[in-house]
Amino acid sequence: MTTEALVQQIKLKKSFLCIGLDIDLDKIPKHLKKEADPIFTFAKHIIDATQKYAVAFKPNLAFFESYGVEGWVSFQKIMKYLNVNYPNHFTIADAKRGDIGNTAKRYAKAFFETYEVDSVTVAPYMGRDAVEPFLSFEGKHAILLVLTSNKGAENFQYTLENNELLFQKVLKTSLTWEHSNRLMYVVGATKADALVEIRKIVPDSFLLVPGVGAQGGSLKEVSEFGMNDQCGLLVNSSRGIIYKSQGSDFAAAAATEARVIQQEMAGYLNDKGII
Amino acid sequence: MTTEALVQQIKLKKSFLCIGLDIDLDKIPKHLKKEADPIFTFAKHIIDATQKYAVAFKPNLAFFESYGVEGWVSFQKIMKYLNVNYPNHFTIADAKRGDIGNTAKRYAKAFFETYEVDSVTVAPYMGRDAVEPFLSFEGKHAILLVLTSNKGAENFQYTLENNELLFQKVLKTSLTWEHSNRLMYVVGATKADALVEIRKIVPDSFLLVPGVGAQGGSLKEVSEFGMNDQCGLLVNSSRGIIYKSQGSDFAAAAATEARVIQQEMAGYLNDKGII
Repeated sequence: MTTEALVQQIKLKKSFLCIGLDIDLDKIPKHLKKEADPIFTFAKHIIDATQKYAVAFKPNLAFFESYGVEGWVSFQKIMKYLNVNYPNHFTIADAKRGDIGNTAKRYAKAFFETYEVDSVTVAPYMGRDAVEPFLSFEGKHAILLVLTSNKGAENFQYTLENNELLFQKVLKTSLTWEHSNRLMYVVGATKADALVEIRKIVPDSFLLVPGVGAQGGSLKEVSEFGMNDQCGLLVNSSRGIIYKSQGSDFAAAAATEARVIQQEMAGYLNDKGII
Repeated sequence: MTTEALVQQIKLKKSFLCIGLDIDLDKIPKHLKKEADPIFTFAKHIIDATQKYAVAFKPNLAFFESYGVEGWVSFQKIMKYLNVNYPNHFTIADAKRGDIGNTAKRYAKAFFETYEVDSVTVAPYMGRDAVEPFLSFEGKHAILLVLTSNKGAENFQYTLENNELLFQKVLKTSLTWEHSNRLMYVVGATKADALVEIRKIVPDSFLLVPGVGAQGGSLKEVSEFGMNDQCGLLVNSSRGIIYKSQGSDFAAAAATEARVIQQEMAGYLNDKGII
């Protein structure tokens, strides 16, 4: 999916909501556990109920991976379900991969060709040749970790060299890479002030902002400091939406919560003159 | 597997060789392709032939992942084969995972419990809470990326703050984490001079050194500058061993190559008075 197509969907749906599929068998409604594939069934209901309020879905690979081969089967079914039924939704494999050249190529092939996702989150530590293989696919994107919302982010991301923090260096350096126009960036929402600095370096890029909701970020601040004139934001919520109810109304409850966020988002898009 | 048990195996086998299982269907002997699971069959023959010269096997997850669900089935079978037949070999899931708390916990569970590997390679960018979940399993290890052997390593790993390079900061910081005695470190072999600096910070830790052979590193230099009095090294070779021959003699050719390396290693272990 191209960035242009994503912007079009944002305008159409008046939403820049990404729903994170962090599917945990201990948290899904009990009545689903008798299903042949509870993970897929849960995801299907959540997707159907929330898709009109969201422009993107982000399966969190660690959750699928922790269930072994069966988890991968569920992931594959979810991707197929999304691509067949909701081809206009942007998909993100939240995998945070990062490895050298020929290995990175393998990961890119896996996600872009085998599972047909639109984008993959990628770690920057190994540098250029760990990221570029993800940028050689037209209509596909690498979403580079820049500034994360966890406590450990302080350990290395703020390393200061010549008045420049490591996360700023990562951003600037990434702009010199081939097909850097296919890059997006992960920016933790609890760092809304840092968004101002980040927007100076990448005014036009899309930012994937996790951490709104359960992780404590403010949607208002993120929109104020992070939005550009094409929106340029995907704000993710996972647990706050998908586990809103543990009862038989879980999908409707998720939809209600997604709609609340979408309506707040519509307000910010309107304020900015995007819709 | 504990570090003590690993040291014991190194002394017993006079080897610190790790064999990387980067299994590529385009590179394995053609006659194996008619097998039901060519990846597993290839791995089984390579493992059986080389196990007496190696103390560790390192499946490279990207390769398995690129074959979709079937690739994960092969990985699982390989891990089971290793654990049942060669329980004294140290196993490394080369996955370079790195994500926040509850997600990192999932990855740790996946590799340590579902697949029963001894260790996982982990990326440092997200800091403490992305790594510590891998350190809470007794007898299991996180192998932290410190200095890699690819060209892009220069982009960020040498970021200089207060006379300290980022890779040195990663090492020092990691020593403050809980159960840091379960950490090992990835250090690219093409940076043998950096080994001296690294050994000043972590004199006692195990270093996993990829990049010997196909990536151009020198085993002699690595041993000279990286070995401590418990060896403290696992040197990896992948393509140089497993693809030595494309013919029906592939396993024997791999064994011959592994033996050549093991014998060179025995010399260095002997020089150091370890065996």
